[in-house]
Amino acid sequence: MKKLEVYLSPEEYLLRNSSFEHLVVIVDILRATTSICTAIDSGVSAILPVATVEEAKAKKAEGYIVASERNSIKLDFADLGNTPLGFTLDKYIGKEVVLSTTNGTKAIANAKKEKAKEILIGSFLNLESLAQHLLKKEDNIIILCSGWKGVFNLEDSLFAGALASLLLQDKEYEIGNDAVRMSTLLWQEKQNELLPFISQTDAFQRLVKNGLEKEMEYIFTLNQISTIPILRGDRIVAN
Amino acid sequence: MKKLEVYLSPEEYLLRNSSFEHLVVIVDILRATTSICTAIDSGVSAILPVATVEEAKAKKAEGYIVASERNSIKLDFADLGNTPLGFTLDKYIGKEVVLSTTNGTKAIANAKKEKAKEILIGSFLNLESLAQHLLKKEDNIIILCSGWKGVFNLEDSLFAGALASLLLQDKEYEIGNDAVRMSTLLWQEKQNELLPFISQTDAFQRLVKNGLEKEMEYIFTLNQISTIPILRGDRIVAN
Repeated sequence: MKKLEVYLSPEEYLLRNSSFEHLVVIVDILRATTSICTAIDSGVSAILPVATVEEAKAKKAEGYIVASERNSIKLDFADLGNTPLGFTLDKYIGKEVVLSTTNGTKAIANAKKEKAKEILIGSFLNLESLAQHLLKKEDNIIILCSGWKGVFNLEDSLFAGALASLLLQDKEYEIGNDAVRMSTLLWQEKQNELLPFISQTDAFQRLVKNGLEKEMEYIFTLNQISTIPILRGDRIVAN
Repeated sequence: MKKLEVYLSPEEYLLRNSSFEHLVVIVDILRATTSICTAIDSGVSAILPVATVEEAKAKKAEGYIVASERNSIKLDFADLGNTPLGFTLDKYIGKEVVLSTTNGTKAIANAKKEKAKEILIGSFLNLESLAQHLLKKEDNIIILCSGWKGVFNLEDSLFAGALASLLLQDKEYEIGNDAVRMSTLLWQEKQNELLPFISQTDAFQRLVKNGLEKEMEYIFTLNQISTIPILRGDRIVAN
């Protein structure tokens, strides 16, 4: 049997009791992993995730194209913000782009620390392709929600439930922890009213208030792309 | 408006973004808070929670009655284990009992560190009484799940959802974080099949394997007592 676990934050993942070798799927639906999927699918050659605005600024000084924002507003020094559709412009095709994302970077750093065999990037955009890719493997899988500054959020766990539900159709997978049970139940109950359910949350309302309502529809529309971004060294590239 | 938040582990609670004054309800369904509710309701004068077996052993040497176990087996030096019904014997009436509980003690310690206005003990046994008690107050409330060594568990979050659902009937409460939304949904979907749902989990199976099936029925039977245990200093007593 292959094991499937879900963790609700990068901090919880480090505290886990299990010690098996595993692949990690990083999830940060609002909005880092959705942006990364969009960027790589649109032809960006690599995304370099950094944790802080300061690091992003330093990369800008080195000549990189930089995506960085605070409170949903693009920062002065940056070339673009963190909104997924911003990465689809032709001028970024073939280019490397630095992306500042606190929660997403922490999740990736922790997966590296735990020597994950592969670190893959998941979002609702590439849900089905990602599941098909994973189902071909013989590995244990951990779905790692980025959460928000160490705290649980609904959008990441809904995605975890969606992906876990697809993987559990393969009877070779066994449920490894309670977060799999919780997240698959969330998905089962809310998959047909995803946007209305998510729209109750503070995170969603904050983004809508900042004019990102159309982006929200894009972010929560399933299976728009087949690209599966993967971490190689410090760069996220197409698999 | 009064705020209502749920945290899924003592570690997550410390990372929270909010900073309002609040009451805390400690939840450790399997089995510390269920045992504490049972003990105080049965006439035990106070429970002294300690984090480790070593501390429990030291308290035993000081002459205390001590409840301590490892892997569901009462430890040699202890007077009783951690199973709730063990605390109902007449010989413990009017006595103070030391209880070793790793996750529960951590939750209590963190609530003290965060200067919670009151620290109350919740379980399915006193769900309705606890809700009625809280509804009379004008305070913000945090429901703090003990989890298991920093990791999410289903039984604590189901209880959080049950209590949150009762509190939210008062329109003066507003949902403060996504864990409230998740846990109330869990409760809504599974309240009528609580035991079958929980019985899938590893924690439950481990306890049943150790002969605690009858205890499980007791633990998940709602509203058996009206006692509301509260922390005063280092002791948990009747409110």
